[in-house]
This record gives sequence, C-alpha cells and structure tokens, in this order.
Amino acid sequence: MNALPGHFYAVGIGPGSPDLLTVRAVKIIESADIILTPQAKGSNRSLALHAIEPYLRSQEILTVNYPMQRNGHDTRERWNSIAVEILNKLQQGVSVAMVTIGDPLIFATTSYMISGLSTALPSENIHLIPGISAFQIGASRFHDPLTLQEDRLTLMSATDLTAVENALNHCETLVLYKAASVIDELLEILKKRGLLPTTKLVSCAEQGEGELILNGLENGIPEDLSYMTTLIIRLGEKQWT
Amino acid sequence: MNALPGHFYAVGIGPGSPDLLTVRAVKIIESADIILTPQAKGSNRSLALHAIEPYLRSQEILTVNYPMQRNGHDTRERWNSIAVEILNKLQQGVSVAMVTIGDPLIFATTSYMISGLSTALPSENIHLIPGISAFQIGASRFHDPLTLQEDRLTLMSATDLTAVENALNHCETLVLYKAASVIDELLEILKKRGLLPTTKLVSCAEQGEGELILNGLENGIPEDLSYMTTLIIRLGEKQWT
Repeated sequence: MNALPGHFYAVGIGPGSPDLLTVRAVKIIESADIILTPQAKGSNRSLALHAIEPYLRSQEILTVNYPMQRNGHDTRERWNSIAVEILNKLQQGVSVAMVTIGDPLIFATTSYMISGLSTALPSENIHLIPGISAFQIGASRFHDPLTLQEDRLTLMSATDLTAVENALNHCETLVLYKAASVIDELLEILKKRGLLPTTKLVSCAEQGEGELILNGLENGIPEDLSYMTTLIIRLGEKQWT
Repeated sequence: MNALPGHFYAVGIGPGSPDLLTVRAVKIIESADIILTPQAKGSNRSLALHAIEPYLRSQEILTVNYPMQRNGHDTRERWNSIAVEILNKLQQGVSVAMVTIGDPLIFATTSYMISGLSTALPSENIHLIPGISAFQIGASRFHDPLTLQEDRLTLMSATDLTAVENALNHCETLVLYKAASVIDELLEILKKRGLLPTTKLVSCAEQGEGELILNGLENGIPEDLSYMTTLIIRLGEKQWT
C-alpha cells in the first residue's frame, strides 16, 4: 500500500522504537511526499522523527507546533488552521502522512486534525493506520493479561481524580494515561485501597534512556516522572460463569 | 531483534493482514525455529497462518488445538499441557514464536500459555510483542476518536449483558468484543437507549471477503455474524474542565 496523491494518512507509529511500526505504516511513510510531525510547544525534540528515521529518504518533513494546553476551543482552532494549510497541499496533488506516537485514535491530536480536514476533504481520501499504544507496550513488559475471560479494561486520563476513583470500582484492569501531573494523589488513592503492590508504572517505554518500568509501587517512585507515564492497575479477575 | 535459542515469544500479529504486523513481529517470526499456531477446535482454517505467510521460510509450523469453551479450569489444563510440550523444545535450545491474532494480552489464549510456561521458564526468556487489536483496526475505518481529552474507553466481552448495561453508564466509548452470540439482546439494549445510530459494527476487518463494516445499526444487521464481531459505541465526550 503506497501513499496516493491528494490523500491524507494518519499513521500511528507506536511507542518510539522504529521496529514497532507496522509494515503498513512503514510503507506509507516511505511513499508519502510530506511527513507531518506535530510538536508540542516547549518540547525540545521530536520523538516521532526518531521513530521514523530509518524510513526517511527524500520526503519533505513538515513540523507543526501546537500548544500543549487543556483548552478545547483553542486546541481545535489551532488544528483547524493547520488543516487549512494541509488541505492546500493535498489539493496540489501531494500525499501527506501525519505521524503520531501511539495510536491515532487513542488520546491523540490526530483526531482534531481529521475533524479539521473532514469539512473539505472527501472521506475516502482520509486513511487511518493504527499503532501500538503506550498501554500495550507497557503491559508487554510484564506477564499478566490486560483482559481475559469476562474482564473489563478501562483506559482514561488520570487527571480527573473523582473519575479515577469511580473507574476503580467498575473494571478489572485500569490504565491511567498522563499520570505524572497527579502522581501523589494517585499514590494516595492506590495506597488506601491496598493497590500499590499490584500497580505497574511504565514511562517512556521503547524511547531509550528515559525508560522506567516498575512492577509494584510500594517502594516508592522516582521524582521527575516524564509526562508520558502510564499506570496499569490490575484490580481482579472476572471469570466466565 | 532476532529470536534467541531457548526463548519464547508471544507475538501479536494484528487483525489478519500481513502488513499489519509490526517490524519487530516480522523479525521474530522470520528468525524463530518453531512457529506455534493455536487453532480452536472446530475452526477450519488458520487465520494466523495466512497473516504470517509472507514471513515463512524454513521455520517448523506447530499447530496446537484447544477447545473453544467457557470453562476456565479445562482451558488452563489444556494450555498447561501445551506449555509442557513447548518447554521441552525450549530446553533443547530452539526458539519458539507463538502467534496470536490481535494483541497477546487482550482477550487472548496467550495469557494461559505464559502462565503455564512461567512455572519453569525464567522470566527473561519470555517476551511479548504487542499487536494491533480488533478495536483499533475497527475504529480506524471511521473518523471518530476512541478517546480524547478526558474520555474513558472500556473494552469488554459482550457476553455478560448486565455488565454491558452497567458499562454504558461509565464510559464515553464502549468496545464490545464477541458480540455475535448475544447480538439480538445487545440491539435491544442499544435501541432502548437510542444508541443504534452511533454504534459501529466491525467484523473480520482485514481478513478478506468476510469483512463487514457498519456505521450505525438503525437499519439492521446481516444474519450469521462472525464470531469475530466487535461493536464500538460512542456514548459522549468528556471534555477538559
């Protein structure tokens, strides 16, 4: 499958290691005219560029900046203006592959971009290629299932602590993204419930030196956790009846 | 990364298309001595073998049968006996890659196998390679996010209907695996809640002719759904506050 002229590809590139892209993602990246790499303002390196480096030849690299903020309106505005810029290029007949760490539909800015493009680009010119998400690579470092039999798996951002408390009552495995900014509060909640020993912490897996993998949190955690910190909490098993 | 002698690899191979394996999965499969393909009793073809066919050279293919049943004890017994057989081969110094449709930790028999091996094989000789799960390829056929901002995503088997009703109240996106056997009851539940138009059905995505993709179920569904049927129900948005 090669990138087609005038088509847009939202490509999930997995956690950060070049060999965790799918073969399809590699082919689209290799054949696209333009590689669009979003970069949050303030971050000083592009993890995505490292992950796709072995697949770069003569493609144009277009880096777009966006603000890392919790403001839905401003976020959408920024992505709509990026979408206008990209639409212009697509209409000139080039192919564009936007690369996203993880999966483009799981907590990814790609969704804003697709929404911005959808008003003017035919649906059949928009393609999504799934990628390995952080919770999958995180879980793969341990030997416990995420879900088996009748287990429920919930993925959410850790930032709403009331919602976290609620979710702990309604699933067998809870995955919390973006755990770093509220880690002290999370540890308190987990401690109260006796869950520290069965909680796993994964930070920057497959991203080189910064990688941190903890199986059980009862002995504490390092300070200065990366933004990209995920907790995997195994709460129980729901067996077949 | 090549498969090492005496090491076991649980390799997620994605939904069924050979280009949806990761590069790492391909390399392990290409370099393993033995490829272990589980086959549920009664199924008449090996989807996994089709997905990895381009990567097969001189590897030995070992197909193991297991009963598709909702009996935890018997399932574990069967996998423990397969594990003994595989341990014997590993101890002779061969490398074994067990291939699993989807991701090895998301509703996959791989978890029983790993549990069986873990009693006798050192932890560092067991490796998991994540794969694209059915919900990811399913969602990629539409342009809606699975999760954004503060959304909660829950994955579960559809078979416990009370748990399904409960989950509909506690997330923004609900993914139901194994929906075929209870599809009439599910449609009734979704109809009552006015959710038929926003429910997506994906069956055998990337598996060739049998693929079925429905965006909205208000106009009914075909009879004879495949066992591999997933529903993706978008319930709302939970925005940043």
